[in-house]
Amino acid sequence: MSKKNEINNNFLEDLSDLISTNSSQKIKELICDLHIADIAEIISEISIDKANYLFQLIDEEKSALVLMELEEEVREHLLSLLSSKEIATEVIENLESDDATDVISELPERQKEEVLSLIEDNDHASDISDLLNYPEDTAGGLMAKELIKVNENWNTLQCLKEMRKQASEVKKVHTIYVVNDNDKLIGSLSLKKLLLTETKVEIKEIVNTDLISVPDREDDESVANIMNKYDLIVIPVVDKNGVLLGRITIDDVMDVVKEEAEKDYQMASGITEDVESSDSVWQLTRARLPWLLIGLFGGLLGANIIGFFDIENNFELAFFIPLIAAMGGNVGVQSAAIVVQGLANDSIKINTIFSKLTKELGVALLNGITCSAIIFGATAVLQYPIGLSITVSLSLLAVIVFAALFGTFVPLTLNKYKIDPALATGPFITTVNDILGLVIYFLIGLAIL
Amino acid sequence: MSKKNEINNNFLEDLSDLISTNSSQKIKELICDLHIADIAEIISEISIDKANYLFQLIDEEKSALVLMELEEEVREHLLSLLSSKEIATEVIENLESDDATDVISELPERQKEEVLSLIEDNDHASDISDLLNYPEDTAGGLMAKELIKVNENWNTLQCLKEMRKQASEVKKVHTIYVVNDNDKLIGSLSLKKLLLTETKVEIKEIVNTDLISVPDREDDESVANIMNKYDLIVIPVVDKNGVLLGRITIDDVMDVVKEEAEKDYQMASGITEDVESSDSVWQLTRARLPWLLIGLFGGLLGANIIGFFDIENNFELAFFIPLIAAMGGNVGVQSAAIVVQGLANDSIKINTIFSKLTKELGVALLNGITCSAIIFGATAVLQYPIGLSITVSLSLLAVIVFAALFGTFVPLTLNKYKIDPALATGPFITTVNDILGLVIYFLIGLAIL
Repeated sequence: MSKKNEINNNFLEDLSDLISTNSSQKIKELICDLHIADIAEIISEISIDKANYLFQLIDEEKSALVLMELEEEVREHLLSLLSSKEIATEVIENLESDDATDVISELPERQKEEVLSLIEDNDHASDISDLLNYPEDTAGGLMAKELIKVNENWNTLQCLKEMRKQASEVKKVHTIYVVNDNDKLIGSLSLKKLLLTETKVEIKEIVNTDLISVPDREDDESVANIMNKYDLIVIPVVDKNGVLLGRITIDDVMDVVKEEAEKDYQMASGITEDVESSDSVWQLTRARLPWLLIGLFGGLLGANIIGFFDIENNFELAFFIPLIAAMGGNVGVQSAAIVVQGLANDSIKINTIFSKLTKELGVALLNGITCSAIIFGATAVLQYPIGLSITVSLSLLAVIVFAALFGTFVPLTLNKYKIDPALATGPFITTVNDILGLVIYFLIGLAIL
Repeated sequence: MSKKNEINNNFLEDLSDLISTNSSQKIKELICDLHIADIAEIISEISIDKANYLFQLIDEEKSALVLMELEEEVREHLLSLLSSKEIATEVIENLESDDATDVISELPERQKEEVLSLIEDNDHASDISDLLNYPEDTAGGLMAKELIKVNENWNTLQCLKEMRKQASEVKKVHTIYVVNDNDKLIGSLSLKKLLLTETKVEIKEIVNTDLISVPDREDDESVANIMNKYDLIVIPVVDKNGVLLGRITIDDVMDVVKEEAEKDYQMASGITEDVESSDSVWQLTRARLPWLLIGLFGGLLGANIIGFFDIENNFELAFFIPLIAAMGGNVGVQSAAIVVQGLANDSIKINTIFSKLTKELGVALLNGITCSAIIFGATAVLQYPIGLSITVSLSLLAVIVFAALFGTFVPLTLNKYKIDPALATGPFITTVNDILGLVIYFLIGLAIL
C-alpha cells in the first residue's frame, strides 16, 4: 500500500541532481509510484526549467491530474509549452468536465475554441461548452457533469445493469441520482438500499426523496454553507425546472471554504492580495503596501490633529497618545472580526443591525469601564497629575465604546451594500479609530486640563 | 423532494407562539419534515426553555442526530434533562460510534460509566470504549468504527453477499476496505470495479492497493492537511501494525479546518476564546478583555517611555507618535499573518527560519523605503521642521524593518517550540511593536534634534 511520501530536502536534492544529468530513466522510477499530489508538490518546489523537464516524464494519464493540483501560474506555464492538440487529447480528455472546464477557461482567448474543437469525445466537449457558460463563483461553475443517474421506473436489476454502463465513464461513484422521464431530479438511491432490495422492486419504491439540491446560479459560498450545514459530501445541481444538471463534490467546496477563510484573515491582517509565504518579494511587497499607505495617511492626519490641539502647552497629553490609539484600534478590530465571522458563517441574519449594536454597546461598556478603572488606578499610583488621570480614563471609555460601535456598524453596512465586510477589518478600522480616538482624547483633555 | 428551509423570523415567531400555547400536535407537523440541521438551527435560535419543550417533541431517531448538530453547551443542557438510561438507549444507540463517543466524553465523569453500561448493543459499547481512549485531537479521536470491510480472499459474489450483511449496520457506505486474514488493511475496492467484474474473480485481483491511510495517533490538523492535499472524502485509520481500526469522513475534518481557520482569525483580531456574535454579552466581554489588558499595559509602558525622553522640551516629536506606533503594528501583523498562514497550510517546511527572515527583510526594505520617501516628501511639503522630517523618515524605515523581522521571527519560534504561532499575531505583535517603535523613534529623535 502506498503511503504519503515525505517530500524532504534530501529527496529534492537527489531529484535535482538527476535532472541536471538528464537521467530520465532513474527519475521515472523515482516518481512513478508517487501520488499526483506529491508530484505536484515537487514541481512547485523546484525551478521552472526543472519542472518543465520533470513534467515531460510523467505518464500522460497522471500528468493531466498533476496539472490540476498545481498553482494556476505554474499550470499556465506548463500548458503554454503544449500544442492545442496536445492539450485537447492529452490533458482535457483525461480530466472530468469541471477540471477540464477550468483548464480551458484559463487558456488565452484565441486558443479556447481551437482546443474545444480538437477534443475527440463529443459528449465531453459539449459538457465543457455548457460549463463554460457559468460564472466561476456559482454552483454551475463548480459542478461536474459526470454522475450516475437512474430512472424511477426501472427495477433494481435494470438499475444495476445501467449503472455498470455509466460507471465505466465516471471516475468515482458518489451518489446514485434518480430522475423521472423528463430528467427531473426525484431523489437519490442509497447503495445500501440497492444491495438490500429484491431485484424486481421498482426504483420509485426505494428512492429517497429527502435530497437537498442547489440551483445552478447559486453563489459558491452559499453552496459551501449548505454542504457544511447538512454535512453533504456531494450535492446535485438543478436548473430552474428541477432538471438534474450535475453535481458538486466536497473537495471543490473545501477549496472555497479555505480561500474564503484565508481572504478574511488576510484582510484582517492588512494584506490585499492572495499571497503565500513562498511568493516573490515583489508580490509580497505589492500585497502589503496599500494598507501601509492608508496607515501613513492616517499618521499624517494624526500629526495635524496633535499640532492643531496645541501640544506644546499641553505636553503631558502626549504621554497617553499611544495608549488611546492602540486601544481604539484593538477594540475596533475585535468588534469587526466578530461581525465578519458571523456573516461568513451565515449566523447573522435574524438579528438586525440595531440589536447587534445594542449588544456591542453592552460589551463595550463592560470592557470600557473595566479598562478605565484600571488605568485610573494605575495612573494614580504612578503619580500622574489627577487631571491627566481623569482625562485618560474618560477618553479611554469613550474611545472603547465608540470604536466598538464603529467596528460593528461598518462591516454590517458594507455587507448590506454587498461589499465584502472583511474590508472593514484590519488597518482600515485601526487607522480610522486612531484618528477619532485622538480627537476624542484631545477634546476631553482640553476641556478638563 | 425536500429543499433547505429558510428559518426566518416569521417562522420562529409562529413556532414560539405555538410553544407558548402548548400546541404540541401543530408543532410536530411543522417540524416533522425538517432536516435535522434545520431543527438544530431553530433550537439554537429560541430560548432554552422553549428549546427543551421542542426537543421533547422530536422523534427519537432524529433527536439524537439533532443533538450532534448543536453547540456543545446547548447539547449538554438538553442531555442533563435525560436519565442515563434515556441517554444510552435513545441517544447513544442512534448515533455512529464517533458521535456517540463525543456525547459520552462530554458527560459528567460519574455518569460516563453508567451510560456505557446501559448500552444494549455490546459491539457498539465496546467500540465506544475503544474510542474513548484516544485524545480528541488525534485521528483516533475523529474516527468512527463503522465501515464496510471485505477479505482479499473472497470472490465478488461472496463480497456482495457479505456487504449486504454489513451494510445493514452502517449508515452510509463510503469505501469498501479490503483486509487480509489478519485484518491488516490491504487496499480499497471501488464500487465501479465490483459492478464491472465477473462474480468469480477474487477480490485480491481487483483490489486497489494505492490507498492512503493515517495512524491512529496522528494529529487532527495533519489528518485535515492530508485529506485536503489528496482530495479524500474518507480516510482509513490503522494501528502501528497496519490493522484497520476505523475511518474518518470529510465532514468531521471540515469542522477541524473551519475551527482552525476561525481560531487563527480570532487570535489575529485579539479574541481569546471561541465566541460567536450570538454569544452572551458576558462571554463576549470575557473573550475580549485579556488582549485589551495587554494593550493597556503596553500603553502605560509607552507613557513612561515618552515621559523618560523629556517630551516637554521635544514636544514636536509628539506629532508623529501615532504614525510610528500604527506603522509598526500594521507591518508586524502583516508579517506574522503570512507566517501563520504558511504554517497552517503546511507550506513552510523546506525553508529555514533564516531564509524566511532574509526574504522578509527584502519586503520590509522595499516597503520601508517607499513609506519613508513618501513621509519625507509629505512632511517637507507640509513644512514641518527638516530635523523632524529626517527623524520621522529614518525612524519609520527602522520601525518597519524591525517590526517585519520581529513579526516573522516570533511565530516561527513559537511554532518551533510547539506553541500555537497565531498567539503572536494581533494585539501581542501590535503592543510590542508600539513600545519598540517608540523607543526607536525617540532615540533617533534625540540624536538628530
